[in-house]
Amino acid sequence: MGQIITFGEVLMRISPWGNKKFIQSNVAEFFFGGTELNVGISIARFGSKVKHISAVSDDFIGETAISYINKFGVDTSSIVRTKRPLGVYFLEVGAVMRPSTISYNRSHSSFSEIKPRMVDWEKALKEGEWLHWTGITPALSPDAFHILKEGLTLAREKGMAVSADPTYRRGLWKYGKEPKEALTELLELSTIFIGGINEINEVLGTNYSYSNEDFIEASKALIEAFPSIEKVFDKIRTSLNSSWHKIRARMWNGKEFKETEDLDITHIVDRIGTGDAFAAGLVHGLQRYDDCKAMKFASAACALKHTYEGDVNLATVDEVTAILEGNTSGRLNR
Amino acid sequence: MGQIITFGEVLMRISPWGNKKFIQSNVAEFFFGGTELNVGISIARFGSKVKHISAVSDDFIGETAISYINKFGVDTSSIVRTKRPLGVYFLEVGAVMRPSTISYNRSHSSFSEIKPRMVDWEKALKEGEWLHWTGITPALSPDAFHILKEGLTLAREKGMAVSADPTYRRGLWKYGKEPKEALTELLELSTIFIGGINEINEVLGTNYSYSNEDFIEASKALIEAFPSIEKVFDKIRTSLNSSWHKIRARMWNGKEFKETEDLDITHIVDRIGTGDAFAAGLVHGLQRYDDCKAMKFASAACALKHTYEGDVNLATVDEVTAILEGNTSGRLNR
Amino acid sequence: MGQIITFGEVLMRISPWGNKKFIQSNVAEFFFGGTELNVGISIARFGSKVKHISAVSDDFIGETAISYINKFGVDTSSIVRTKRPLGVYFLEVGAVMRPSTISYNRSHSSFSEIKPRMVDWEKALKEGEWLHWTGITPALSPDAFHILKEGLTLAREKGMAVSADPTYRRGLWKYGKEPKEALTELLELSTIFIGGINEINEVLGTNYSYSNEDFIEASKALIEAFPSIEKVFDKIRTSLNSSWHKIRARMWNGKEFKETEDLDITHIVDRIGTGDAFAAGLVHGLQRYDDCKAMKFASAACALKHTYEGDVNLATVDEVTAILEGNTSGRLNR
Amino acid sequence: MGQIITFGEVLMRISPWGNKKFIQSNVAEFFFGGTELNVGISIARFGSKVKHISAVSDDFIGETAISYINKFGVDTSSIVRTKRPLGVYFLEVGAVMRPSTISYNRSHSSFSEIKPRMVDWEKALKEGEWLHWTGITPALSPDAFHILKEGLTLAREKGMAVSADPTYRRGLWKYGKEPKEALTELLELSTIFIGGINEINEVLGTNYSYSNEDFIEASKALIEAFPSIEKVFDKIRTSLNSSWHKIRARMWNGKEFKETEDLDITHIVDRIGTGDAFAAGLVHGLQRYDDCKAMKFASAACALKHTYEGDVNLATVDEVTAILEGNTSGRLNR
Amino acid sequence: MGQIITFGEVLMRISPWGNKKFIQSNVAEFFFGGTELNVGISIARFGSKVKHISAVSDDFIGETAISYINKFGVDTSSIVRTKRPLGVYFLEVGAVMRPSTISYNRSHSSFSEIKPRMVDWEKALKEGEWLHWTGITPALSPDAFHILKEGLTLAREKGMAVSADPTYRRGLWKYGKEPKEALTELLELSTIFIGGINEINEVLGTNYSYSNEDFIEASKALIEAFPSIEKVFDKIRTSLNSSWHKIRARMWNGKEFKETEDLDITHIVDRIGTGDAFAAGLVHGLQRYDDCKAMKFASAACALKHTYEGDVNLATVDEVTAILEGNTSGRLNR
Amino acid sequence: MGQIITFGEVLMRISPWGNKKFIQSNVAEFFFGGTELNVGISIARFGSKVKHISAVSDDFIGETAISYINKFGVDTSSIVRTKRPLGVYFLEVGAVMRPSTISYNRSHSSFSEIKPRMVDWEKALKEGEWLHWTGITPALSPDAFHILKEGLTLAREKGMAVSADPTYRRGLWKYGKEPKEALTELLELSTIFIGGINEINEVLGTNYSYSNEDFIEASKALIEAFPSIEKVFDKIRTSLNSSWHKIRARMWNGKEFKETEDLDITHIVDRIGTGDAFAAGLVHGLQRYDDCKAMKFASAACALKHTYEGDVNLATVDEVTAILEGNTSGRLNR
Repeated sequence: MGQIITFGEVLMRISPWGNKKFIQSNVAEFFFGGTELNVGISIARFGSKVKHISAVSDDFIGETAISYINKFGVDTSSIVRTKRPLGVYFLEVGAVMRPSTISYNRSHSSFSEIKPRMVDWEKALKEGEWLHWTGITPALSPDAFHILKEGLTLAREKGMAVSADPTYRRGLWKYGKEPKEALTELLELSTIFIGGINEINEVLGTNYSYSNEDFIEASKALIEAFPSIEKVFDKIRTSLNSSWHKIRARMWNGKEFKETEDLDITHIVDRIGTGDAFAAGLVHGLQRYDDCKAMKFASAACALKHTYEGDVNLATVDEVTAILEGNTSGRLNR
Repeated sequence: MGQIITFGEVLMRISPWGNKKFIQSNVAEFFFGGTELNVGISIARFGSKVKHISAVSDDFIGETAISYINKFGVDTSSIVRTKRPLGVYFLEVGAVMRPSTISYNRSHSSFSEIKPRMVDWEKALKEGEWLHWTGITPALSPDAFHILKEGLTLAREKGMAVSADPTYRRGLWKYGKEPKEALTELLELSTIFIGGINEINEVLGTNYSYSNEDFIEASKALIEAFPSIEKVFDKIRTSLNSSWHKIRARMWNGKEFKETEDLDITHIVDRIGTGDAFAAGLVHGLQRYDDCKAMKFASAACALKHTYEGDVNLATVDEVTAILEGNTSGRLNR
Repeated sequence: MGQIITFGEVLMRISPWGNKKFIQSNVAEFFFGGTELNVGISIARFGSKVKHISAVSDDFIGETAISYINKFGVDTSSIVRTKRPLGVYFLEVGAVMRPSTISYNRSHSSFSEIKPRMVDWEKALKEGEWLHWTGITPALSPDAFHILKEGLTLAREKGMAVSADPTYRRGLWKYGKEPKEALTELLELSTIFIGGINEINEVLGTNYSYSNEDFIEASKALIEAFPSIEKVFDKIRTSLNSSWHKIRARMWNGKEFKETEDLDITHIVDRIGTGDAFAAGLVHGLQRYDDCKAMKFASAACALKHTYEGDVNLATVDEVTAILEGNTSGRLNR
Repeated sequence: MGQIITFGEVLMRISPWGNKKFIQSNVAEFFFGGTELNVGISIARFGSKVKHISAVSDDFIGETAISYINKFGVDTSSIVRTKRPLGVYFLEVGAVMRPSTISYNRSHSSFSEIKPRMVDWEKALKEGEWLHWTGITPALSPDAFHILKEGLTLAREKGMAVSADPTYRRGLWKYGKEPKEALTELLELSTIFIGGINEINEVLGTNYSYSNEDFIEASKALIEAFPSIEKVFDKIRTSLNSSWHKIRARMWNGKEFKETEDLDITHIVDRIGTGDAFAAGLVHGLQRYDDCKAMKFASAACALKHTYEGDVNLATVDEVTAILEGNTSGRLNR
Repeated sequence: MGQIITFGEVLMRISPWGNKKFIQSNVAEFFFGGTELNVGISIARFGSKVKHISAVSDDFIGETAISYINKFGVDTSSIVRTKRPLGVYFLEVGAVMRPSTISYNRSHSSFSEIKPRMVDWEKALKEGEWLHWTGITPALSPDAFHILKEGLTLAREKGMAVSADPTYRRGLWKYGKEPKEALTELLELSTIFIGGINEINEVLGTNYSYSNEDFIEASKALIEAFPSIEKVFDKIRTSLNSSWHKIRARMWNGKEFKETEDLDITHIVDRIGTGDAFAAGLVHGLQRYDDCKAMKFASAACALKHTYEGDVNLATVDEVTAILEGNTSGRLNR
Repeated sequence: MGQIITFGEVLMRISPWGNKKFIQSNVAEFFFGGTELNVGISIARFGSKVKHISAVSDDFIGETAISYINKFGVDTSSIVRTKRPLGVYFLEVGAVMRPSTISYNRSHSSFSEIKPRMVDWEKALKEGEWLHWTGITPALSPDAFHILKEGLTLAREKGMAVSADPTYRRGLWKYGKEPKEALTELLELSTIFIGGINEINEVLGTNYSYSNEDFIEASKALIEAFPSIEKVFDKIRTSLNSSWHKIRARMWNGKEFKETEDLDITHIVDRIGTGDAFAAGLVHGLQRYDDCKAMKFASAACALKHTYEGDVNLATVDEVTAILEGNTSGRLNR
């Protein structure tokens, strides 16, 4: 199979140990992540060839980011180095009714300030089979939006699958472009939609509820509006509190509606990147399984991610498959 | 608003990481705390002016204790330095059915051996509006008792509110004074009572049960015995085990009885100082809200404290208010 | 009372902090353990005299292993030092539906390659009153099997009690001997059987189910086949997931069947060695209590072990007894 | 005595433990510093009243920065909070012939983007007696330059002493202003010059050598060019390698030249902020001692700073004085 | 050979990592030590049987102290447990010209408040061959002094060797007894004197200088005053600074004077307990070698201790002997 | 340029923090290394394409080893996975006169038990330009020797350069083959000799001294005996103690003798792998510079490696070149 391509910002995540606030410590752990990179690394852990495209700083922090991605065997040859600093986010991890809190330092980062022609899409997509994008990238800057659109255009010309996770975070869109407008242009170049009612309502200007009935209607409306989109996948999270969630998934693939049972995540280790784990599971699954099994694989991957520290799902195909098959008792492997 | 004044011992807390016993480690974390200081710092985090009065050692440990208090913007100008060591407590953190265990080294500490005239109450209370005390201080030594009483007397003369948390720990009272007698003298100088059936029974020599009916009767009897006391607040903890508690509160304010719903704390991070978080929430609330909202604020503060490491509730007013308003799902703040 | 003797491999356990995988870290904690050693140390914590017999490496790792055992007051004078390395196991700790995973490096360890006459059983058992063995030892090598059998033979000649925990792990038996055959020879020299349906079925070639009825039948059949065995104790684990288990116990002592209630372990700290904690509790209990109380003590010890980091139950008799008596609320001990 | 006022950026410093590169670790320590803040905290440790003026982020990182400054008793009431992130620098610590390396993320920081009227100089300098500035601030942005100049102007009007450390780092000056021009405007408002031949040559456009003779000539020329400047102090560092330096100082106070002996720093713990420790020692010394003793105090403070981790000299007056008096044998204090 | 007996306080040492001050950290390492215990453990590492006698707290800290001593195979059976807390000392580690600083919390410790008849000397010395004491013990309390004297008396009756290290720390002697008087009573019961000019001058009231000539005269005078003393050993430390010392030794054994060459300790890891390492080396050496080799062994042991973290010399006889034989190049052992 | 190929064992290194012994800790850092891998990674850091060939375990430890190598961009596609465990070594880091000590657990490792045909040399060397081997590999097992020889034979057929570092460690050769015989067969297939008098004497059975004169004679004799060898490079280490070394190099290239000045390494951070850093510098240098500059580059690389933690030289070409050009003052890079 060809390469799965991801394009997006690489962020350094810095957080104190355990549930400490920064004010309580002088030591922090750091990881690297970024919503598209998280998808890419997870897919690489599943055994596929993956290339991540980004812009990182031309210093030892950028070097560390690249080495972090290399570690998982993801191709870093299309990552460019610039004079701007790598984006950083600081995280304080909550528990029970205390939410985790994030503070970003990314608005002038190497990726936000990526410039046209920094990405050679012809070369980057040479062995590409699938391109995955999220709504974070077009939110960052006009150039990020345009470079992404350029990549999607080429991907479609080459007949690649394009999965879209238009995760909508209003706070990010600061440079003037209307989210609805930008996402519309990008969804016209996409084939798989990963997102829920909020994202559909945002893009279509509709007002669907969270019910399964509305989900089906919303999906149909979306597919009508964007004929290139073939399938819609949604992940539903029930938060008892910061430490205890339930996850299930549902889908409309143009023909049928399916949903999974809740997976009960009683002791969350790390909630960051669990949506990305879902997307990664889906990309992996759709390349190999029928839609329903792909959705279950994605849902199991998402649930499993809550047990790994850091932004990235480190589970293997065997580990996800075990959950998918109902083996959730967590018995020790010797 | 004027200063909230707290007076009491500052202790250094030393405990191994995680759930380790000392026998298993050679590394420990340290925090500073002390029941009255915990109240003071929490109130300072809520945005009020706070001064803590204490006696600490005249060495780098005392220096560290003061710098720790400074960190939270609490006024340390009335803390005295002496040649005696700072009190220390060692903590082994339990889980599930294993209780946490504490070993104290405080009986000859700088605070236990505080001497008359070390505290200049006139100066210390100059901008004071509220004075908070607990039953730990009078238990430590005759001088600690007398200095506290002296402070309360002046506070009442100045018309300050005085909140009492007579937390009763029999093990501490070693110097001869009867707890009942000492607490009686101090409660006569107090206006708000924070405590439950055990404390009331101890002070009145009664035998009330934990029922709401008895709580109302007990509160009435207390207010009759101590006419300066206007309101009684109680916090009820249900321990499923070391890792899982429920918290609710109830009150009798001379006119009406109210109680809150249970807050479910499914994954406790640190149980120490949760009672102090309740008291701090109450002092903050009573200065701003009606009694019932103050009680709810206190109960939410108490619950939230279980998610912070260390002795002190680090929550802000916004964070407590979110819980109070029922937002306990812990969704990530970006 | 005389010494309790344990004989078996000492392993160094190496695992990253928290729920990290090795790929995510460059720091690891290490402990020492081994199924028989875990039993020995736990019994020593209960206050008995214990001697552990083993073979460790003649380098600073072997030195560290011995110092670790000394720490708990276990007699190490019969441990031999050899030129082979100490066995190691690497552990990645799971959570929720992610299982913990172990990788062993023990097949050419100092203990696996123990040689005849390295253990002077006459001397080693001089003050022995009870000898405990497990099914791990005979699985490792022909010499390990023979030395164990030699020890059991002498122990029985001296009239010592012999407890057997034939924990069956198929993966370990690589040197040619049939597990059933080896275990049969060793069970003929044992007086107490600690194990469940799986172990009985393996040894007898039967096919009993997990029901209490079958457990009684299976136990009777076992005692008939091995007349030296007087009592059978079984521990039943219900895994909700990696982080949440329930534990109960049952027994057949030749005369009566008893079972305990489930103990609910809602937040597991460390699951390794919990079976050994059960065995240790049983040995301790059978020396002091009636069979039913011994079983309850063992079950409480097993549950409590889930709250300690490392392979070993560090609980004292008082701590276990508190659980046994139903005090599972985990209230802070000051 | 009045307050010493410092004005400048607060930076978060993040570095792996020991001599690790980021590529080798996933854990980092963090400190807060900034050349003017380092001076301020050091002076506060000497017992003076100090206020630091800055702009930090309006998030938990800015909160942590302020709490860090509070810790040392420095007045933070004039620090403003903005929506921009706090500046960060990453540090990899070298050894022997390997230099330490720094990567900055500060060009769009809360301080670099400080805006006119954010600092209320009238209020900020109310109790001010001395104002200290460095050449970093005017290099960051036009607004930073103008706000500083405004502060210096008011300080001179109020008759405050103004010490200038025009530390010249060419890489920082990016916004268009010529360093020479900016520094000239600021030096015209200064009374004490802390800097060496490089800085004098930069400002005067001269070409003096490092010899003592040239230092005297250069100082005279400087004082002639800037009549408000009364004294010139210089610190000379001899680097054997990253781990081993020697420090000495020299001065021209308009009347006489003096220099100190080398202090031999054989095992450097942390080299960052040692120049700031010199400036702090000088400010402290000039308020209390004659010029020559002030210089010696500054030189001892600078040397001692090399033994503290972090950006800040934590030494007390007694500790510096001991070095000044030749007590450099480092004998244990019990 | 019989047991070497040491008697003295066990202290818990708590210090931040590296060269941090407490004010800079929230994590600390802990060790256990105490001048006599350090001697005992070092001798046990050399392979001899050692028993340490002390009083520790009856809590988990006392338990940890005992387990720490057990770890090294030292007999703890004569250590008593009391209700008083274990003594603690806090340490900030200096470097170069910054001295390390210690703050003690020991004046009401379990050992300082040891009571008559707590030590059963008959039983404790049953297999004793050598008793070692230091000047710390008699300084702590009248009871500590009397119990020590009782032990020495019995030791001499049994013909045991008694080594005295009267380390004189004026700050410790607070309970009224004159150091000179107390030390005199104890030296009359000693056979080996380990100490220098300061100690001799203190005891004799003389005024000898540090020269070798004076050392010989002082030793002669000491032996004349205390006829039981046979030999005098002195260790001379040259401190370039906190990080770089030189060590040499000299002796007068009643017949001849000898001294060693300086051992150059260029990068000190931990300076605490190096004097105790000298004493331990001497006790070991005098039992096996001639006086001169014993002194060289002690000097090498002392030098080597500077490379171990913690209070205790962990070197083996082979490692010390290698230094003694001039093998100080530190080549890697594979 | 083509790939540099390295072939050899990958070892996991485990060591406590700082200068601790295992007996003092329960935490350890781990790195991966191996003499040939160290060379490979260092060369990759210099910017060349490198492939490392090895056999690692088929578990999460092997996975971690591969991810570690990936991190540095070294090609891991020819590494095979087997059922045997990865080799491990434990390290205790000495200081001053205390040597570092290593304990190996490698004799049944995945690499020691590598089997014929596991390495597909045709494929592995496809883009190879240079092959580097050391004397460790042939010492491990007959198969390791034969596979290496097979690779060298093919490399020479393809006209690749072959550098040999026959590091002779007698302790490793256990399987029967005579070192001299094995090394002879391999040197006959080599073109660059990296080693000193010891290695030449071992291989030739001669007895040359360390003098430059003898080095030249020995080199000539070596080249005569092994005509494929063109150049001989030697590195000379002077150990003041474990913490302070000096490094210089010398060479005979068949025509001229050259040597470098000593580089003074006053504060060693990590001494492991410094010889490998020399070899890597040499391979890099010989591909680009004249022999003398290559030697100087290698010597500078070796010296610089002493400042990096772990087995691998992380220096870049610029960093090494700075040392080579005499810039050893270690001034901070901002």
